[in-house]
Amino acid sequence: MTHSQRRAALGAELRAAELDAMLVTDLTNVRYLSGFTGSNAALLVFADSEDAVLATDGRYRTQAAQQAPDVEVAIQRACGRYLAGRAAAGEARRVGFESHVVTVDGYDGLVDAAGNAELVRASQLVEALREVKDAGEVALLRLACEAADAALTALVERGGLRPGRTEREVARELEALMLDHGADGVSFETIVASGAHSAIPHHRPTDAVLASGDFVKIDFGALVGGYHSDMTRTFVLDAAADWQLDIYELVSTAQRAGREALAAGAGLADVDAAARNVIVDAGHGGHFGHGLGHGVGLQIHEAPGINATAAGTLRAGSVVTVEPGVYLPDRGGVRIEDTLVVADTGQALGHAPELLTRFPKELAILG
Amino acid sequence: MTHSQRRAALGAELRAAELDAMLVTDLTNVRYLSGFTGSNAALLVFADSEDAVLATDGRYRTQAAQQAPDVEVAIQRACGRYLAGRAAAGEARRVGFESHVVTVDGYDGLVDAAGNAELVRASQLVEALREVKDAGEVALLRLACEAADAALTALVERGGLRPGRTEREVARELEALMLDHGADGVSFETIVASGAHSAIPHHRPTDAVLASGDFVKIDFGALVGGYHSDMTRTFVLDAAADWQLDIYELVSTAQRAGREALAAGAGLADVDAAARNVIVDAGHGGHFGHGLGHGVGLQIHEAPGINATAAGTLRAGSVVTVEPGVYLPDRGGVRIEDTLVVADTGQALGHAPELLTRFPKELAILG
Repeated sequence: MTHSQRRAALGAELRAAELDAMLVTDLTNVRYLSGFTGSNAALLVFADSEDAVLATDGRYRTQAAQQAPDVEVAIQRACGRYLAGRAAAGEARRVGFESHVVTVDGYDGLVDAAGNAELVRASQLVEALREVKDAGEVALLRLACEAADAALTALVERGGLRPGRTEREVARELEALMLDHGADGVSFETIVASGAHSAIPHHRPTDAVLASGDFVKIDFGALVGGYHSDMTRTFVLDAAADWQLDIYELVSTAQRAGREALAAGAGLADVDAAARNVIVDAGHGGHFGHGLGHGVGLQIHEAPGINATAAGTLRAGSVVTVEPGVYLPDRGGVRIEDTLVVADTGQALGHAPELLTRFPKELAILG
Repeated sequence: MTHSQRRAALGAELRAAELDAMLVTDLTNVRYLSGFTGSNAALLVFADSEDAVLATDGRYRTQAAQQAPDVEVAIQRACGRYLAGRAAAGEARRVGFESHVVTVDGYDGLVDAAGNAELVRASQLVEALREVKDAGEVALLRLACEAADAALTALVERGGLRPGRTEREVARELEALMLDHGADGVSFETIVASGAHSAIPHHRPTDAVLASGDFVKIDFGALVGGYHSDMTRTFVLDAAADWQLDIYELVSTAQRAGREALAAGAGLADVDAAARNVIVDAGHGGHFGHGLGHGVGLQIHEAPGINATAAGTLRAGSVVTVEPGVYLPDRGGVRIEDTLVVADTGQALGHAPELLTRFPKELAILG
């Protein structure tokens, strides 16, 4: 889809909500709808017109013209306030705004600028559109996941995961390898957690030295064209103890159950439960303290959240992670995470999701 | 200062504002006041008690206990709402909240949870404390700037800036060199802008090839212990044309004027004007489309902003950038940027600011 088609899709949502226009102030949403990637911007989209106005400041004059050639660009530092005024000066009476993004202070400024136009909460409207990825987005996510797969493969093949190296060295090498394999950048700070550190779900790499018998948990991703990949693999160095084999097998079984539950229309909480019940039944429910997964796209975490309290259902074309874990404090932990595209079930039952992160998931014992 | 001393300083501000407690939801402010660096957290600080409560979710149980050992840790996914309830359940009647951070939707949740306690706007209260750096913070900023200096020195010494390389290669090498020289990470995505790209203030590196006669503008920073450095240098490859020598000299003169205007008590807009007037007088006012500088610390951009419309004055102990630029569209541009500590003028006049970014600023013609 072109940016213009995305704005048209938003226009249909605006008409359904009886809004004349929408003021988009979330920068990721601005990017999604216009292509502009600067750090200060807002976008005004109309319900009944293809025109749109992008406001940004003087630093981005050239970039805005290049990235968003099909919208009017206004150079105005106070982007949101300016566009609220523009909406009011036009014939917009009801103007949606992103109440989940605009701050309490910022709202005052918008109300001032909007004059007689009514500002109406339009929370998560663009995020809901973003939840279903178009073909171009899936293509970029596929490239991002391929770059991550290739980097981890290269790291393992060159013996980069071995006793004696530090977590930080491994993280740095893996990040460099992602860039070598086509990534524009990294999705987030790479997690390399060895030994007892692997029991910390979100561990930052330290100078801790990888040792024989350690779990090494690696959670990382590549960024391609603004799209994020997300994958976790857990290895053992030299030789696995029985307790390590047990929890690896348990997480592996839970992760498969989670992947198999991914289908358009499935309840988000049910998908979480499909994986979580495996872990709870094994007596490790208390060692899996986070949700099963989340959407990925222009952000590393986006809609839908897949967890025990999530309302709603999965939509075909969503790209989500499935990442159960079992963490035994002070001993070690395992997480296995993939990124997948939820398939359109169409008329047949149970179309399998497309697996984007293809690095093997069998326990690899490296030396 | 310890985190506890910072919370005590905030407590004094709360008493002055007749607040019983403050709900801190900005993650950087949470880190400043507690040491906790997780991605989901809020902190409740009291006006008349050393107790504080840090709320975060289950992923961070271990990390929170390690990083913030002197506060109570509550594991609650809806951190802000939980703490608003805690404040109300205690004897807090007037509870400050960060109205510049809390969203319109988030505010509803806080009001619900706060019950009879009154939520009072307390915008930028912690940011104002953060504006003046303590000795430990300056030490980290000094280390960050040293890592950046050492990296750029190494890049130039090994001939890394020469015709034939791409912007992206140079950016990547410079980022790797920062890590080699002690950085934990990079402050922001490195800008390497060659030739006409140097006229784009915030250019992202491309595969454009550096050519003889190009300006190469490099804006980059290192991250050490959470603190950001920020420096820009502009080089010429092989030989400089007269117009390049002219605008380099102009920006250099303006930058010196800006640095010399840095003094405790100086008006922020006056500091901007000191540098800007040099450029305006030379007829290039229209080619300098951004503010003169900004504070740096736990964020790459923080208070104070130094620009033409800024109210207020500089405070001793602030750490700020001075970064004028002149950008000639489709030809090239120059920016020269330092990070400096504003000195305490004490009884004598005109204590010079401490220069943290020490890489030379004379025009270097590299081949």
